[in-house]
Amino acid sequence: MESDLLIEHGDGEGPALRVIGWVESPLTDPATAPKQADDTAPAAWLVFAPDVYDGLIDIEVGDALIVLTWLDRARRDLLQVHPQDRLELPLRGVFSTRSADRPNPIGLHPVRVVTLAPGRIGVDHLEAVDGTPIVDLKPTL
Amino acid sequence: MESDLLIEHGDGEGPALRVIGWVESPLTDPATAPKQADDTAPAAWLVFAPDVYDGLIDIEVGDALIVLTWLDRARRDLLQVHPQDRLELPLRGVFSTRSADRPNPIGLHPVRVVTLAPGRIGVDHLEAVDGTPIVDLKPTL
Repeated sequence: MESDLLIEHGDGEGPALRVIGWVESPLTDPATAPKQADDTAPAAWLVFAPDVYDGLIDIEVGDALIVLTWLDRARRDLLQVHPQDRLELPLRGVFSTRSADRPNPIGLHPVRVVTLAPGRIGVDHLEAVDGTPIVDLKPTL
Repeated sequence: MESDLLIEHGDGEGPALRVIGWVESPLTDPATAPKQADDTAPAAWLVFAPDVYDGLIDIEVGDALIVLTWLDRARRDLLQVHPQDRLELPLRGVFSTRSADRPNPIGLHPVRVVTLAPGRIGVDHLEAVDGTPIVDLKPTL
């Protein structure tokens, strides 16, 4: 099965994501934003597109969720990076790191729901910058 | 910022994923496959496209990873589902469930690396069916 699919891979792009919402955050500069899963990150709003509201009806204050974002400022052509952007550290394969730079820059952000408003979910800590697209929301693993 | 992006959303699709590999598994029937994060799922191979090998160099036996898959048999038009496909349970918003059916059917699978081979990683438990595309691999949260 892989061999067929490998040929397809060479042909270009895979499935297209649908952006279901966006992060609204005081963080605007990616250079100074905390790293993923850093609980010093500020509170933020998840703002959803009206066409997915029906999927949000059971979210409650206190829920532990994983927000999946599309880190649209990341580089998709890097397969090795210096961890934490520290050039003195040796290059590592991106799949052993949480670097945003990787072929599919999907961010995983564990959050706790603190506020609900129409079409918006307030969360305790989120290290993604303002305007980052959201692609999914799931209960914690 | 959202209002601009909302208009764009209505226009169609977002960023395209790149398939970096595929699951090789004895599971072939999605109807009988275990649910996500079920540790009764069988061992499986992750088979990678040669153009991402450079990103895999630091993966070691024993690593705890999260595999991100694209659950390509899922329905993307559902925003509410019966949990565990049990029709007697009330409909729930998909973002409060781990249903594969959702606007972006990205699966999150916690695994442990048990074997390494050229271009392949053997993992202990994986509940995705044979041929499922892989889109990312990260250290556990």
